[in-house]
Amino acid sequence: MKNRRIGIWFIGAWGGVASTAALGLAALKRGLTDNTSLVTATPLFDGVDLDEPEQFVVGGHDIRRTSYHQTIRDLHQRSGVFDTALIEACKPDLELWDKNIRPGTVLGAGATIKKLADWPEVARTDTPCAAIERIQADYQEFQQNQKLDQLVVIHVGSTEPPFALDKRHASLATFRPLLESKQAEIPASSLYAWAALDLGLPFVNFTPSLGASFPAALELAEERGAVVGGQDGKTGETLLKSVLAPMFAKRNWHILSWVGHNIFGNRDGLVLDDPANKESKIRTKDQLIPNIVGYKPQTHVSIEYIESLDDWKTAWDHIHFRGFLGTKMILQFIWQGCDSILAAPLVLDLARMALLAQRRGECGVLKHLACFFKNPMGVGEHDFVKQYAMLEDYIRAIAQ
Amino acid sequence: MKNRRIGIWFIGAWGGVASTAALGLAALKRGLTDNTSLVTATPLFDGVDLDEPEQFVVGGHDIRRTSYHQTIRDLHQRSGVFDTALIEACKPDLELWDKNIRPGTVLGAGATIKKLADWPEVARTDTPCAAIERIQADYQEFQQNQKLDQLVVIHVGSTEPPFALDKRHASLATFRPLLESKQAEIPASSLYAWAALDLGLPFVNFTPSLGASFPAALELAEERGAVVGGQDGKTGETLLKSVLAPMFAKRNWHILSWVGHNIFGNRDGLVLDDPANKESKIRTKDQLIPNIVGYKPQTHVSIEYIESLDDWKTAWDHIHFRGFLGTKMILQFIWQGCDSILAAPLVLDLARMALLAQRRGECGVLKHLACFFKNPMGVGEHDFVKQYAMLEDYIRAIAQ
Amino acid sequence: MKNRRIGIWFIGAWGGVASTAALGLAALKRGLTDNTSLVTATPLFDGVDLDEPEQFVVGGHDIRRTSYHQTIRDLHQRSGVFDTALIEACKPDLELWDKNIRPGTVLGAGATIKKLADWPEVARTDTPCAAIERIQADYQEFQQNQKLDQLVVIHVGSTEPPFALDKRHASLATFRPLLESKQAEIPASSLYAWAALDLGLPFVNFTPSLGASFPAALELAEERGAVVGGQDGKTGETLLKSVLAPMFAKRNWHILSWVGHNIFGNRDGLVLDDPANKESKIRTKDQLIPNIVGYKPQTHVSIEYIESLDDWKTAWDHIHFRGFLGTKMILQFIWQGCDSILAAPLVLDLARMALLAQRRGECGVLKHLACFFKNPMGVGEHDFVKQYAMLEDYIRAIAQ
Amino acid sequence: MKNRRIGIWFIGAWGGVASTAALGLAALKRGLTDNTSLVTATPLFDGVDLDEPEQFVVGGHDIRRTSYHQTIRDLHQRSGVFDTALIEACKPDLELWDKNIRPGTVLGAGATIKKLADWPEVARTDTPCAAIERIQADYQEFQQNQKLDQLVVIHVGSTEPPFALDKRHASLATFRPLLESKQAEIPASSLYAWAALDLGLPFVNFTPSLGASFPAALELAEERGAVVGGQDGKTGETLLKSVLAPMFAKRNWHILSWVGHNIFGNRDGLVLDDPANKESKIRTKDQLIPNIVGYKPQTHVSIEYIESLDDWKTAWDHIHFRGFLGTKMILQFIWQGCDSILAAPLVLDLARMALLAQRRGECGVLKHLACFFKNPMGVGEHDFVKQYAMLEDYIRAIAQ
Repeated sequence: MKNRRIGIWFIGAWGGVASTAALGLAALKRGLTDNTSLVTATPLFDGVDLDEPEQFVVGGHDIRRTSYHQTIRDLHQRSGVFDTALIEACKPDLELWDKNIRPGTVLGAGATIKKLADWPEVARTDTPCAAIERIQADYQEFQQNQKLDQLVVIHVGSTEPPFALDKRHASLATFRPLLESKQAEIPASSLYAWAALDLGLPFVNFTPSLGASFPAALELAEERGAVVGGQDGKTGETLLKSVLAPMFAKRNWHILSWVGHNIFGNRDGLVLDDPANKESKIRTKDQLIPNIVGYKPQTHVSIEYIESLDDWKTAWDHIHFRGFLGTKMILQFIWQGCDSILAAPLVLDLARMALLAQRRGECGVLKHLACFFKNPMGVGEHDFVKQYAMLEDYIRAIAQ
Repeated sequence: MKNRRIGIWFIGAWGGVASTAALGLAALKRGLTDNTSLVTATPLFDGVDLDEPEQFVVGGHDIRRTSYHQTIRDLHQRSGVFDTALIEACKPDLELWDKNIRPGTVLGAGATIKKLADWPEVARTDTPCAAIERIQADYQEFQQNQKLDQLVVIHVGSTEPPFALDKRHASLATFRPLLESKQAEIPASSLYAWAALDLGLPFVNFTPSLGASFPAALELAEERGAVVGGQDGKTGETLLKSVLAPMFAKRNWHILSWVGHNIFGNRDGLVLDDPANKESKIRTKDQLIPNIVGYKPQTHVSIEYIESLDDWKTAWDHIHFRGFLGTKMILQFIWQGCDSILAAPLVLDLARMALLAQRRGECGVLKHLACFFKNPMGVGEHDFVKQYAMLEDYIRAIAQ
Repeated sequence: MKNRRIGIWFIGAWGGVASTAALGLAALKRGLTDNTSLVTATPLFDGVDLDEPEQFVVGGHDIRRTSYHQTIRDLHQRSGVFDTALIEACKPDLELWDKNIRPGTVLGAGATIKKLADWPEVARTDTPCAAIERIQADYQEFQQNQKLDQLVVIHVGSTEPPFALDKRHASLATFRPLLESKQAEIPASSLYAWAALDLGLPFVNFTPSLGASFPAALELAEERGAVVGGQDGKTGETLLKSVLAPMFAKRNWHILSWVGHNIFGNRDGLVLDDPANKESKIRTKDQLIPNIVGYKPQTHVSIEYIESLDDWKTAWDHIHFRGFLGTKMILQFIWQGCDSILAAPLVLDLARMALLAQRRGECGVLKHLACFFKNPMGVGEHDFVKQYAMLEDYIRAIAQ
Repeated sequence: MKNRRIGIWFIGAWGGVASTAALGLAALKRGLTDNTSLVTATPLFDGVDLDEPEQFVVGGHDIRRTSYHQTIRDLHQRSGVFDTALIEACKPDLELWDKNIRPGTVLGAGATIKKLADWPEVARTDTPCAAIERIQADYQEFQQNQKLDQLVVIHVGSTEPPFALDKRHASLATFRPLLESKQAEIPASSLYAWAALDLGLPFVNFTPSLGASFPAALELAEERGAVVGGQDGKTGETLLKSVLAPMFAKRNWHILSWVGHNIFGNRDGLVLDDPANKESKIRTKDQLIPNIVGYKPQTHVSIEYIESLDDWKTAWDHIHFRGFLGTKMILQFIWQGCDSILAAPLVLDLARMALLAQRRGECGVLKHLACFFKNPMGVGEHDFVKQYAMLEDYIRAIAQ
């Protein structure tokens, strides 16, 4: 019997992705929507002991003070998603969950994210150590108040600028002293990650921010027996790249250039309008093609904030390739996807699989989740189908 | 040592695909082009005993009297493909090969194809039996004159109208009497196929026409120890469908509709402008999506003859799908590929692999070639990556 | 002071276009929306005595029994248009206007339209004459009940199959006897038109159906002093053609081919799925390019019913043209517009201008409305900018 | 009788545009191509006394030493344009014209352009004054050697970085002293312009570089009786903008955002890869929409150098607009045009019209040429059709 009580804790709790995931959980629980786009609802997972929507309670950190209903109404009005009746029906859950949201931290989050913050408490700590303690207190209070059997932490906050690692981040021994420093020696995303892993909680990083992607954090995960998933959800244009690029390789067509131009207008877009933050995103989007085809065609990835598009991430990709007898040919695609709608079900899939792995006593990086990420931790493979085969192998081994 | 002498016999020998394949063979032999877009030149095939371009001699049947140089110049001038210098350098081979082209047959080819014929001899026989005998005489003369070790027959002729099979085509015993009939009880493509299989020659059908795709022909292949490949080369838009549709399934997105609109202007297009002939093509293009995703979204495939496009097959595909919480999203792609350029290297790949299979003593349908075809014989799988895995398995087993 | 009371009578009153126009009138009246996309709200019309939204009362004929609220909710749910709060606020007007809708006629409307009808009274008459009398009784009852100063009739019903005119339709004298016939000697759209013109009412045909587009009807309009506008609203893809084609002419680029592929899924689409009805639409869409550029490039227009798109008419146009030194180049566009949303404001514009013309004592075809139509009555010009100049000239002359 | 002998002098003589124009002149002269894409060959110009191709002799300045044949072969091989037979037939003219090309100047051209220069003489002068003298000597030698009746100078060189004008450039009196300075107080494009105007020669600036677009230069033109045309040829994406934006205004649709993403790979692209040079181009491309629609939607223009595209400038434009009742809709277009092929005929048109104006005794800026330019000198109008009407008015006045 599935009477486990599960907590899902979102970093960026009132953002578009977490709010859509929360609405989705509430709607699924009430049978108001089907499970289209949940990977964990495909036949592959038949018989696997996954947690059901009705088991979940939502909590989280944010740096702006708002509410689920507000974010969801904004998405409805500006991006035209969600049925009004469904929103109303789910309101009771969302209002309850609002009470579980706590002020996060902007320590090390970068100037652009700091500017968005409107919750005074988010700036109250001045050392990583103090921030981690406060974050852990929030996690634990949630666990106790809600009598949770398991708690998973998912980072769906805004993208931070790239962070340069050095040898101090290379081991627990060299890293721990940095936590006492008054300087931001580590980004905010890593503070949330550290706080979770240190308590043995599963942590999944759906963003390009650093999170747990450095040796000291992974060492901590091993030490505490925590599982880690990440990084940077593969939701749209990059997914298509990772599906299409292998076709070029298999057909021995030579890719000359691959240009991807992305436009969108949600808060994530506003943050990415800062060139420093955008750099993080472009890096993970741009490494994939060479990795798959084994040579380096000219690639160009741009991301522009176009306000009117709101959550509709629109991408135009132009792929120029050479076929037989030197002939140049062209494939173009145009992708019109709603960002939160694409990300939210993946976030629920990842939560379910991280919770499953924890119950199975796994520890460290969950490599079988590679097909969910632009920059899969611990996995060099970017071909979507090969990544998916890793997931199949894992699930089939469990199901036996 | 590769001192085998190999013949490749094209049905539709002076058409765009065969002419491009011939030019390609000549250019590869002379080292004037690289092997981009030859699947059999990828690392997967390292160490496999495939025939090299310099081993090949070209012959074939056609129903229009022209020359390789003429077809190639037309393609160059109208579609802007091929380098002039390369054409001139390859002229000697092409002129020699022109001498190996013989008049084919229009018996059972349908009215539209008959109208294109300008070679009086193509209409000289009045029974399938007589046509087969004449075709076999042409195959054998080529084998003897050129002192060939092996000969492979590839159908790259125009698309015939669909042909309704009945129980008479279901076995050798019931079918053989039809060959004596004065009525066209079987299309021209099947006469060429029958002639080849009856002599134990490998036969590959790159078109949607019937060819060897009926039980009696397969029974003949088994009896004679001949290998068969087909049918309908997967060159462009359908390849993309077979790469993209599995992504929707794996991500559990529900495809609402998939519209594919194809325009092009080569002779193949002219033939497809006859609704009867077009029907054959659309059938094989339209069955794939339901096969891959397991349900039947609304699909629409259209093919229009637009003269100015010549050999540049342009396709616009609009894929409408439903994601999380009922949200509709859109993927569109535009494919601009040159038909002959896409098909020719696949034809060479198929020839090499059919010849290899014959040498290995295989017999019957070559199922491992499924990834090359829109309507793979003997294989229900349409997912390109799964089809490709079948090829990998086959080649890896050989290479050991 | 604008205290005129104006009636607007829609043929196809509960269809998507009329319902959107009705919702728009109600919303404009209440100041709940701005006048974006009303041509008559641009500065060109400053100072012109046009009727304001608050002056209008809506009535009409339909052949299916439903309600404004139902149609509007369907559009909202299936196509994602209209704000829920706005719908609710406008409900009182829409409910009042529902009471003014009367059963129309299917006499001569063609088999596909007849199948859609679910209101028994629409089939009750068996001669054109009887149908016209009943229609006129409806118009007059509305005028009297609502104490209208003016009434304009707008045809926004489903597209009928093409109708072959002959010499009997060429004059009032030869045509009148046909009205007594028991055979459908004239389509339903023409019965509505005849009924209106015979009463001296302004009639605007927003569809490709015949309506008043035959000599006898125009003679009647002259006799009764009625104004006529039409035909076939230029809302999306064709508008773009009429804007882009002149550019090719002015730059002396030679259009080789222009392919337009349209997909959509509303009721209009269902009716157009009948090849006979589709033919009407394609004819008016396909004549424009040759008319503008003065020669006949290869053109292809297709319209397909794709249910999932609902009211979102999506068009892909591929324009192949030859520039300097014989070079072929390509322009493609993709149009994603919501049909009812595009048509409704034009319908209001046309109503306002027909009413103005009637007050000014004009009579016969309103040629200055050409820029609103795919097939402008009495005007050979299809270049949008030249058509718009005709409107400017007319309005400027009035404004002086 | 047209026995005038005309010189056309290209700044950037061996670049893609000038080379295509030269090839075009030679081909037209020999009757080897038709006049498709020459605006001056449309019926509007019937009866106007324009110079014919056979009257022209080509000369010019460049900073890289190459030949017409070399540039044309490069374009043929890399971009697939021009017929080989046509190139060979025109070779004699091109070889003669090669002899008229002289080393230009890199004084004030900016670092990126300087890096491209491989002709030592281009750096030999150190004051604007000395550079102008040398340029004028080249113009005059050409006039005398070729016994020219008229000479027109056309700037088709690489785009320079933006140049900040100040009050010193505001009059002849304040500007002349700058020419003696050893510092680059004025860009190279303006030196060529000054040299031409000072000799009373017609000067046309087809680029976004400064050229004659400053008050002192225009004062000089008036003083010397010279005509001036410019600036920045409107060849592709911007032309489409100037045709489409007025449609939105006329239909009262509100443009929310207009994103234009341009990719191409010719030498012009290489120069534009320097952000300073690109800035010039984007400025003129980005001002147009607000100018036409009268408000400022969010606009984004990007230009990226993608080597494999060579001369094929590909643009994707995404136009997001709001229609009736707040509904957002989308128009996208994809433009695939060959840059030199688009520009060359316009350059010939401009030369013919500048020569005509000079013969008619006109002087100063030729405002009727606005429809040819992204940033028309002396004209605020960007609507293509309105600009074209200015041309029509001018030509019709002449033709009477």
